[in-house]
Amino acid sequence: MTIPAHRIAFGEHLRDLRREHGWASQEAFAHHVGLDRTYISGLERGTRNPTLDVLVKLARGLDVTPSDLLATVE
Amino acid sequence: MTIPAHRIAFGEHLRDLRREHGWASQEAFAHHVGLDRTYISGLERGTRNPTLDVLVKLARGLDVTPSDLLATVE
Repeated sequence: MTIPAHRIAFGEHLRDLRREHGWASQEAFAHHVGLDRTYISGLERGTRNPTLDVLVKLARGLDVTPSDLLATVE
Repeated sequence: MTIPAHRIAFGEHLRDLRREHGWASQEAFAHHVGLDRTYISGLERGTRNPTLDVLVKLARGLDVTPSDLLATVE
């Protein structure tokens, strides 16, 4: 399966934001937001397709807005 | 089921953008973006939880960015 460009852009931005906001490991961030590490990994690689509810959860965990989380997505 | 506040905010914003961008009817907009009218209705009422792929489809159909689509979501 080819991963859509918007998922790649989202995943890279999520990874950047996670690191910028002090969560060096996917494991620690996953625990912080109440999601599984493998799911965070899939989001960052673009293989998972998060719902609005998950986007809101991720944004709150990073202390950014949901809109910020999609800033690089076209 | 109580509808989460972020879904209500999203739905109201989607409805506003749809009308502002000239799609008076849910039916016409649904056809334009390739989704079902009942699904658009559910999104606007906050009962549906769209994925990133759907958000991108909606944004393209409205000629806004995915980030714009979540502008009012907290």
